[in-house]
Amino acid sequence: MAGRSVARQAGPGGVPEVVVMRLPQYIRVLSSLMAQGVNIVSSQRLGEILQVTPAQIRKDLSYFGRFGKQGRGYRVRHLIMELKEIMGLDRRWNVVLVGVGRLGRAVLSYPGFAPEGFHVVAAFDADRRIIGRTVGNLKVQPVEELDETVMERGIGIGIVGVPGPHAQGVVDRLVGAGVKAILNYAPIAAQAPDGVKVRNVDPVLALQTMTFYLLGEDDEA
Amino acid sequence: MAGRSVARQAGPGGVPEVVVMRLPQYIRVLSSLMAQGVNIVSSQRLGEILQVTPAQIRKDLSYFGRFGKQGRGYRVRHLIMELKEIMGLDRRWNVVLVGVGRLGRAVLSYPGFAPEGFHVVAAFDADRRIIGRTVGNLKVQPVEELDETVMERGIGIGIVGVPGPHAQGVVDRLVGAGVKAILNYAPIAAQAPDGVKVRNVDPVLALQTMTFYLLGEDDEA
Repeated sequence: MAGRSVARQAGPGGVPEVVVMRLPQYIRVLSSLMAQGVNIVSSQRLGEILQVTPAQIRKDLSYFGRFGKQGRGYRVRHLIMELKEIMGLDRRWNVVLVGVGRLGRAVLSYPGFAPEGFHVVAAFDADRRIIGRTVGNLKVQPVEELDETVMERGIGIGIVGVPGPHAQGVVDRLVGAGVKAILNYAPIAAQAPDGVKVRNVDPVLALQTMTFYLLGEDDEA
Repeated sequence: MAGRSVARQAGPGGVPEVVVMRLPQYIRVLSSLMAQGVNIVSSQRLGEILQVTPAQIRKDLSYFGRFGKQGRGYRVRHLIMELKEIMGLDRRWNVVLVGVGRLGRAVLSYPGFAPEGFHVVAAFDADRRIIGRTVGNLKVQPVEELDETVMERGIGIGIVGVPGPHAQGVVDRLVGAGVKAILNYAPIAAQAPDGVKVRNVDPVLALQTMTFYLLGEDDEA
């Protein structure tokens, strides 16, 4: 399949991270266009929806080879398939969760992961009162078993669901176990060595960046 | 109090949004330093922790007046208090949630909001099967009551917890009700008019920006 060879050519090294950050959004927009029955889309139209320039879109896609012909637009279904394969989004990813307290349980109850191919297959905690309990169909394992589970199952993604003070330690532990991608829900800017990606999910920080604009607005507080 | 007058001087108009985005992270780092017993911190040290240059930190803070003396460092507790007041983080913010399905309930179960002063005080849904139920101490109201509740209670912040296809409509509805800050959990890039801030919480998108780097890694998939 063309996508596979294209994906091989484009090693992570050669692609700027900003581009990698944008492609999943391209896939989303393309998927919603396909759902609306759109078969062909121009970089112009894509740019309008994504609020980037058409030139930027063509440049981003050029890292992975040629898609669509100049002035002919992109075949939506084909581009989705190619981009999903390039990004590794055409497959199932098993994920481990560390921290099954209130935050971790909220993460487990999040309904968005499985439909997109991300499956939490093991959950760990250091709290003896939680270990052995079944939460969301998972039997909580002692964190001491993390390395073994990650290695045995070849798991590359970890979710950090522990409180802030313990989060960096858990990140270090996931890195030590061989995890290369970490989704951190703790309210800290987690640090990881080169070669390990970390993304922070931080709804409180997001709220805290908006309240400044509400000052002076009427509020009951 | 100095902070109040400083805050008054610095209207939202005059401060770049990138600065507003950084300040809550400054507050966080300063708070953790204070918890460690640090009373004075240099812009050098702050910069190392925040991975920005000391000059950037001084420039960011300069929008709100002078903090600390050249070469003397910042008084941690004082700076936290001033920044919290400037950012509106020294007070309680009431929040409405629209969407109390699986996603909205996951949002309600998130333990991080209340300790930081964000309180979900009303929840709305369009689904007759959910309306009237009590979820997390809130009686789910019909979405038709959104405008009245937002206006009566002078609420400035709304959380979107509905599925993607309904999210933009809910954003528009919140904007119509007078909400000026929106936290969107639906997997869409929600659009809002000038004067309304939107932040997207999107853990799936975050995961999707990392899988590219896992390709070639061993994985059971």
